[in-house]
Amino acid sequence: MTDNTQVRLARRPTGLPTDDVWDITTQPVPEPAEGEFLLRTEYVSLDPAMRGWMNEGRSYIPPVGIGEVMRAGVVGEVVASRNNRFAEGAHVVAMTGVQEYAVSDGKGVQVVSADDAPLPTYLGTLGMTGLTAYFGLLEVGKPQAGETVVVSGAAGATGSVVGQIAKLKGCRVVGIAGGEDKCRTVVEELGFDACLDYKAGDLKAGLRREAPDRIDVYFDNVGGDILDTVLPGLNMHGRVVLCGAISQYNASAEARGPANYMSLLVNRARMEGFVVFDYTDRYGPALKEMAGWLADGTLQSRETVVEGGVRAFPTTLLRLFAGDNVGKLVLKA
Amino acid sequence: MTDNTQVRLARRPTGLPTDDVWDITTQPVPEPAEGEFLLRTEYVSLDPAMRGWMNEGRSYIPPVGIGEVMRAGVVGEVVASRNNRFAEGAHVVAMTGVQEYAVSDGKGVQVVSADDAPLPTYLGTLGMTGLTAYFGLLEVGKPQAGETVVVSGAAGATGSVVGQIAKLKGCRVVGIAGGEDKCRTVVEELGFDACLDYKAGDLKAGLRREAPDRIDVYFDNVGGDILDTVLPGLNMHGRVVLCGAISQYNASAEARGPANYMSLLVNRARMEGFVVFDYTDRYGPALKEMAGWLADGTLQSRETVVEGGVRAFPTTLLRLFAGDNVGKLVLKA
Repeated sequence: MTDNTQVRLARRPTGLPTDDVWDITTQPVPEPAEGEFLLRTEYVSLDPAMRGWMNEGRSYIPPVGIGEVMRAGVVGEVVASRNNRFAEGAHVVAMTGVQEYAVSDGKGVQVVSADDAPLPTYLGTLGMTGLTAYFGLLEVGKPQAGETVVVSGAAGATGSVVGQIAKLKGCRVVGIAGGEDKCRTVVEELGFDACLDYKAGDLKAGLRREAPDRIDVYFDNVGGDILDTVLPGLNMHGRVVLCGAISQYNASAEARGPANYMSLLVNRARMEGFVVFDYTDRYGPALKEMAGWLADGTLQSRETVVEGGVRAFPTTLLRLFAGDNVGKLVLKA
Repeated sequence: MTDNTQVRLARRPTGLPTDDVWDITTQPVPEPAEGEFLLRTEYVSLDPAMRGWMNEGRSYIPPVGIGEVMRAGVVGEVVASRNNRFAEGAHVVAMTGVQEYAVSDGKGVQVVSADDAPLPTYLGTLGMTGLTAYFGLLEVGKPQAGETVVVSGAAGATGSVVGQIAKLKGCRVVGIAGGEDKCRTVVEELGFDACLDYKAGDLKAGLRREAPDRIDVYFDNVGGDILDTVLPGLNMHGRVVLCGAISQYNASAEARGPANYMSLLVNRARMEGFVVFDYTDRYGPALKEMAGWLADGTLQSRETVVEGGVRAFPTTLLRLFAGDNVGKLVLKA
């Protein structure tokens, strides 16, 4: 066997996580003890939330410690097993981090089938990303048929699924994305009713035009100016689902708050955060429903798969914040 | 009969509503037509929301028009009547504005009894202010016994009632107010568990000390820095009730958003606005319940009554924004 290449957090970043915050280390491939198995990483998930995990301080999960292997969801193949729930050759999804090999006792690990979907999809639409879209939209946003749903980061991993589920529920769906190409994909391939390119300017006028009955649900992945521009357009009893704020994660200045938050008062609206982990006991039925939508073609999954192995993780993470991917960004290990 | 002195909005203010935004006019006292009655204003309600009504633009009610009598709730006496629902000598609460006399057809007017409570109380605890506290806390905040409720503007008209109702519901109640005297009143006379003087500094440390189990409900009357300081202290599934943002109403710069709003995500919390008018069909039972609490002494009403007649309205309104009143600020007409 070869060595195990690992990406470790060397120091906490200020602003964008540049090369110097990482250490690439090499260790012998570990051996599974009784009850454990060894997985070889095949794909690594890249998520905006990773930037938050790199910061010191209280959040919904503890930060990654300095010197630790960077936390990440992966799809891997079981290459040696002393746990009869995980057969050699099986594919699994696990939170074993940015490294080529990992040993696991199987806790929190799901077996997946390469026959049912391409493996990267288990990190995207059929993984945490899809579940985030599903529970955030349906449980927090509670869209009703005929309502207008606006989603930012519309071409991204979560946003692209949110918009499609909202369409399935009979809503008018308006995406917000950066760039003409992404907007075209969102409308022509994913079936959104409209998509506004915020880089083209005058998002406010665009929202007025494409959401003439005002906005019932806003699913926010980006925060910052876009959140502020959307808020005054909320409908009575509107719901803002706080999923993320990618525009703010690398800000070295203090994060900007939504100056127009008083629109919540005027419109008797609410802004609510959620964390997908709170729905763990409902993952099974949700994934089954989404797998059905994928199978019958009413839901489409998009992934951008980057080659280069785990050593390419630092540069691939920067692509996520540059926003040049469509759908789920995944690194081939 | 004398003339009718009126306070009209002459122009829209920038920042604090200084003397020059008002016109004091005098007109003959109007005569009631068939189905109408004439009221003589006895007390005028002063409310932070008035500042919002003076701005152009979409809100939960239309702005006061330039040249119009300033909108205000009043308690008045019926002095002439051609409507048999309103007998001469009766006391009524009406939205007839800042003027000495007004004619009304009775729509939206309530008859009140000077025997049951002092007349100014019908503009405070037994009026819109009390209803705002009642529905905002109970319907939006939904406090549970044993939870911690924090309320800003704790010595003010709404905050003082919110905190007392939260105590009635078995919560730990921490007020935030400006100045030692107001804090003392809130704790010693109104029964809050603690009150933090934000002017004394280090509100964050005070909240940690007085809300050691974190904050389940934050009832916000002030916005700005105080909202931002409270947000990170929210408990899991915390609720922020947006009632007002008096610190921002006179800001000539762009309003500041709550930079720490992502605490809503981390804590799966929500921030929600409400407008008391949405509960109109439940005013009756709510007022009855509060009157009962007043009668048995479990709820105390505080009013600051200013003398001077309607001409004193402009300067009295400024006192509201200076925050030097305890309880409801009322002008004797």
